[in-house]
Amino acid sequence: MIVLFTDFGLEGPYTGQVEAVLSAQAPGTPVIHLFSDLPVFDIQAAACLLPAFTGRFPPGTVFLCVVDPGVGSARPGVVAKVDGRWFVGPNEGLFALLVRRATAVECWQLPDDPQAAPSFHGRDVFAPVAARLARELPPAGDVIGAASLDRPDWPDDPRRVVYIDRYGNAMTGVRAASVTADVPLCVNGHVLQAARTFADVGQGTAFWYENANGLVEIAVNGGRADTQLGLDVGTTFDL
Amino acid sequence: MIVLFTDFGLEGPYTGQVEAVLSAQAPGTPVIHLFSDLPVFDIQAAACLLPAFTGRFPPGTVFLCVVDPGVGSARPGVVAKVDGRWFVGPNEGLFALLVRRATAVECWQLPDDPQAAPSFHGRDVFAPVAARLARELPPAGDVIGAASLDRPDWPDDPRRVVYIDRYGNAMTGVRAASVTADVPLCVNGHVLQAARTFADVGQGTAFWYENANGLVEIAVNGGRADTQLGLDVGTTFDL
Amino acid sequence: MIVLFTDFGLEGPYTGQVEAVLSAQAPGTPVIHLFSDLPVFDIQAAACLLPAFTGRFPPGTVFLCVVDPGVGSARPGVVAKVDGRWFVGPNEGLFALLVRRATAVECWQLPDDPQAAPSFHGRDVFAPVAARLARELPPAGDVIGAASLDRPDWPDDPRRVVYIDRYGNAMTGVRAASVTADVPLCVNGHVLQAARTFADVGQGTAFWYENANGLVEIAVNGGRADTQLGLDVGTTFDL
Repeated sequence: MIVLFTDFGLEGPYTGQVEAVLSAQAPGTPVIHLFSDLPVFDIQAAACLLPAFTGRFPPGTVFLCVVDPGVGSARPGVVAKVDGRWFVGPNEGLFALLVRRATAVECWQLPDDPQAAPSFHGRDVFAPVAARLARELPPAGDVIGAASLDRPDWPDDPRRVVYIDRYGNAMTGVRAASVTADVPLCVNGHVLQAARTFADVGQGTAFWYENANGLVEIAVNGGRADTQLGLDVGTTFDL
Repeated sequence: MIVLFTDFGLEGPYTGQVEAVLSAQAPGTPVIHLFSDLPVFDIQAAACLLPAFTGRFPPGTVFLCVVDPGVGSARPGVVAKVDGRWFVGPNEGLFALLVRRATAVECWQLPDDPQAAPSFHGRDVFAPVAARLARELPPAGDVIGAASLDRPDWPDDPRRVVYIDRYGNAMTGVRAASVTADVPLCVNGHVLQAARTFADVGQGTAFWYENANGLVEIAVNGGRADTQLGLDVGTTFDL
Repeated sequence: MIVLFTDFGLEGPYTGQVEAVLSAQAPGTPVIHLFSDLPVFDIQAAACLLPAFTGRFPPGTVFLCVVDPGVGSARPGVVAKVDGRWFVGPNEGLFALLVRRATAVECWQLPDDPQAAPSFHGRDVFAPVAARLARELPPAGDVIGAASLDRPDWPDDPRRVVYIDRYGNAMTGVRAASVTADVPLCVNGHVLQAARTFADVGQGTAFWYENANGLVEIAVNGGRADTQLGLDVGTTFDL
């Protein structure tokens, strides 16, 4: 299974061109669109979401991960094998929190490809590598240390909003398991209590809860947390 | 074939996680995204669209239907076999108009699953059931009466907008077959005549017509009905 | 492989219904969503994008192309075999630049189908034809000349924006190969220099470059060209 984790959007031409490469080079492999609307240019947000959303997938799954403001520059591409799953993408911090929390990590730096379009490595560099891995071929490139994927300046659980979903709920960079279950969350002057889920608070009430992927999420029962609390990707809070 | 009918959005993480479950538990079954942008929290709108958009699918098709503001509360999940097709989802009214219009209905109430994430039954409860049905395994759970899926307080053909499409056309809850073909439609002070299709009225003219799924739809030839007439999901009208 | 090139949107009901037809009538054929958000009603924009984005696909690929403001009128549907690939859609100009630049073109006019819903030929006319072609069945209909697909009043490389992507980059109707590599581009009073890619200009700098599909594209490194330069689909420029 190949899983796409990008900021490409589904409707425009980028994801479709990647899928065409995968279909040609790894025919018959199921392709899952996990995230196609990651916050544009926000590598740290993607880095928080990646370990939260990939842990349920079976060993051998190949994740094609692209949030790549530096495309076309000298930043290298990497392959990482992390606790049995494969990850391919640009090495700009996207895999920092994933490798920091992992038990077993192996990494390879992808060789340069002078044929690749300088603005679309997702299609020309990373998709062919993902297709190779899905066909159980070994990664190419020089072995590098896992530390070269980390961003030591980033905290483990950034106190910031990393994604606003279709309902206006705000996912954060904080793992719920890293905080006390009933601690209040303070954001934009609002103090929010914890709850188990939406139905446990009154209609229109803002709260925080552990979402279905283990992250602290800010929500409103029957309403939109983003508009009600003034939240956007990047909004910081205390917890 | 498994058909998704949800308000999850395609680009964010919800549909992808559901697809990953389906791919693992019913490998090789085609998955069709019929609606991924149903109006959030608007069960009645979805209930109007469901029978209009599912009647063309062959017997045995499995519809995974989720518009679920009560997720995590005590509201039960159901499986319904309706005129040879399978439907799975929360029992909050979503299947009300479908069963009311059907010839043959059988229903089962899904058992509680204490392992399911309280905010994502689509992934943890309904997708596994849909996968089982796609593999032609029988539904689990107690048999219940079809009447328990209905919402007797809802009219057969609600005079309201239930969906605005990408072109600004407004689908309504009214089956075209339930009204006189040439009756005018009055909305927000505008009186609209019926037409067969866009090309039959002048450029910029608002009208109503029977759309390709049998519903009354409000449209403007070469323009957007939503902005020109001030329409939104929930706007009511006379017809 | 069947490739969809439409303005239908992915999330609403149109693409899903087309896919259901393809899945039933050409089971097992991979379906790629190349563009689902082509500018609504803008045939010339789609006509510029089509040859730029289809040339990488292998011979035998079937492109289902629908931007169809005239649906339900007398405008005919066509099948075109262009340099070994198949194209199906309404004949309103969508294939004009494709056939003009091609080496080998054969065309057929589709017969009328009185059963088709007058507002959804994508589902009822073009999808069944695409499925037939994917199964390597010959096209039906009368042979017509390639000239009947052209729009002689359209220039080869329209100086206008034809698509704004998720990052705010503006694709244009101009093939980069048709202009001098270092000529400046003037739009809305801004004079933009050419660059190889984003990383070659300063943060926040607007420029133009040859995108990964050979078109002139207007972009800002680390920003949105559409908002920074006031660009929209249809904006014209000098180059």
